Amino acid sequence: MNEINQMASQAKVWIFEMSQMIRTTSKNSLIIDTKTSASDLVTNVDKEVEKFFKENIKKTYPEHLLLGEEGLGDEIVDSNGTIWILDPIDGTTNFIHQQRNFAISLGVFRDGKPLFGFVYDVMRDDLFHAICGEGAFLNETRLAPLKEKKISDALITMNSKWLVENGRLDDELLRNMVKDVRETRSYGSCAIEMSYVAAGMLDGYLSAKIAPWDIAGAWVIGNEVGAIATEIDGTAKDVFGYGGIVFAAPGVHKELIRNYVRGI
Amino acid sequence: MNEINQMASQAKVWIFEMSQMIRTTSKNSLIIDTKTSASDLVTNVDKEVEKFFKENIKKTYPEHLLLGEEGLGDEIVDSNGTIWILDPIDGTTNFIHQQRNFAISLGVFRDGKPLFGFVYDVMRDDLFHAICGEGAFLNETRLAPLKEKKISDALITMNSKWLVENGRLDDELLRNMVKDVRETRSYGSCAIEMSYVAAGMLDGYLSAKIAPWDIAGAWVIGNEVGAIATEIDGTAKDVFGYGGIVFAAPGVHKELIRNYVRGI
Repeated sequence: MNEINQMASQAKVWIFEMSQMIRTTSKNSLIIDTKTSASDLVTNVDKEVEKFFKENIKKTYPEHLLLGEEGLGDEIVDSNGTIWILDPIDGTTNFIHQQRNFAISLGVFRDGKPLFGFVYDVMRDDLFHAICGEGAFLNETRLAPLKEKKISDALITMNSKWLVENGRLDDELLRNMVKDVRETRSYGSCAIEMSYVAAGMLDGYLSAKIAPWDIAGAWVIGNEVGAIATEIDGTAKDVFGYGGIVFAAPGVHKELIRNYVRGI
Repeated sequence: MNEINQMASQAKVWIFEMSQMIRTTSKNSLIIDTKTSASDLVTNVDKEVEKFFKENIKKTYPEHLLLGEEGLGDEIVDSNGTIWILDPIDGTTNFIHQQRNFAISLGVFRDGKPLFGFVYDVMRDDLFHAICGEGAFLNETRLAPLKEKKISDALITMNSKWLVENGRLDDELLRNMVKDVRETRSYGSCAIEMSYVAAGMLDGYLSAKIAPWDIAGAWVIGNEVGAIATEIDGTAKDVFGYGGIVFAAPGVHKELIRNYVRGI
C-alpha cells in the first residue's frame, strides 16, 4: 500500500469514528449557534468533529495542513503542501431538523492536485470515495463514467434561492432552466448533491457561492468519472476558491453554462 | 386484533413482498413509458405492483375497491365503501434515475374516513405508518405531535416548478416565501415529502395539482400528529379530489395560506 492509500485508509477510520459519535449524539444535547445569518447554523458536534480531525492530523501528519469549515484549522495562504479540506457536517440544517441527510466531507490535495476524497452520508451509511486515478466508488460499487446527456433528460439540484432575485445569478434564466429540465431536486447538502452527480443519480449541481469544504470531497470523486467542474462563467474551478460552481455531466454542463447560468 | 388492525397487517405483508420484488429488479430490465408528458414516466414495475395489489385485494376482500395510479383498479364514483388508494411507486423518476428515494404509498378509507396509511421508502427501509386513532410511527418510533412553528423557522418542500410561471399558483408570492423560510427542499416523492412533514423533519408541503394516490397514505399518517391538510385556498381537503394541497405543521400552514399560496 502506497503513502496515499495509507492516508486514505487512515482518513476513513477517522470518518467512521466520528460518525459513530454523531450517531449516538442525542438531539437534546445539541447546542445550536448561528453564524453569518439566522439560517447559517452550527452545532457543538460540527466543532467537535473538526477538532478531532485537527488533533489527529497534527499528531499523525505534523507537516499537513487543515482547512475546515469551523475555522479550527490552519491559515491557508496558498495550495502548497498537503492540505486536508474538511466539512465536519455538510448539511447542518438537515442535521438539526432531520437528524439525517448530512455528510462528513473530506478532500485531500497536495500542491493543488487532488489525492483522495470522501463524502460519507452518515445516517444512510453511504460512503462515496475516490483515490485519484483509481476510480470512484459508492460503498463497494464502482461508479460508471458519466455519459453525455441532454438538459431535457437531466435532474438538476440547486438551492431554490437562486430562482429568486439573489444578487449573484440571473434568476430569470434559471427559471427558464426549471421549465427545460426533466426535474429539479434540493437535498440541503452540497456534498451529497455533488456525490449524487458523480454517481449518475443527478446530472448537475450549481451554486454561485460555495466554500472549498463544501465541494472538495465530491470534487475528487466526480473528477474520477468525468464530471465537469467550472466557475459559473465556465472558467476553470479552483477548489481553494470561494466563488461558485457548475458541476455536471458532460453535455448538461455545456448547456447549463451556455443557456442558463449567468452571473449578474 | 380487530378488523382494521388485521387489514393493516395484511397490507404491510403485501407492501414488503412487493418491496422485495422491486429491490431485486435490475435497472436494465426496466421498461419505461411516458404518460401525459415527457417527464411523466411509468415503468413495468409500477404496473406490476398495482396488479399484485388488485389481485390480492379482490381475493381477500372481494367487496373492497382499489383506486390506483396506473388505472388497473376500480372506477370510483364516490367515497362509499372501503377503498384502497395506492401509488405503487411514488417518485417514479427517482426510481428510474436513482434506484432510490421512491415509496409505496397506501391509504385505506371507509365511507370517506381514514382507516390506516403506509408510506414505505423502499431502499431506505423507512416505514411510515398509522392506524387511525392509534398514533403514527416511523418504523418502531412513535412520531410526536407537531408543534406550532413560524414560517421563518420552517423547511418547506415543493417542486420548483411552482416558482416559475405555471398557470395555477402565483409564482411571485411563492418566491417571496423562498426568501422568508429557513430553507426549501425537493425530494421528488410527494409521499416521502409529506411523511417527512408528519415526522417533523420538514414543516410543510405544497402542490397545486395532486392525485389521491400521491397523498392518501401520508395524509392518514400526518392526521395522527396534527398536520393540517387543506386545498390551496384553505378549504377542507378531500382526499378523493384532484386539486392541490397545503400540508403543514400548525402555524406554518396558516402563514402559507395567508401570505404565500394563491391560486390564479
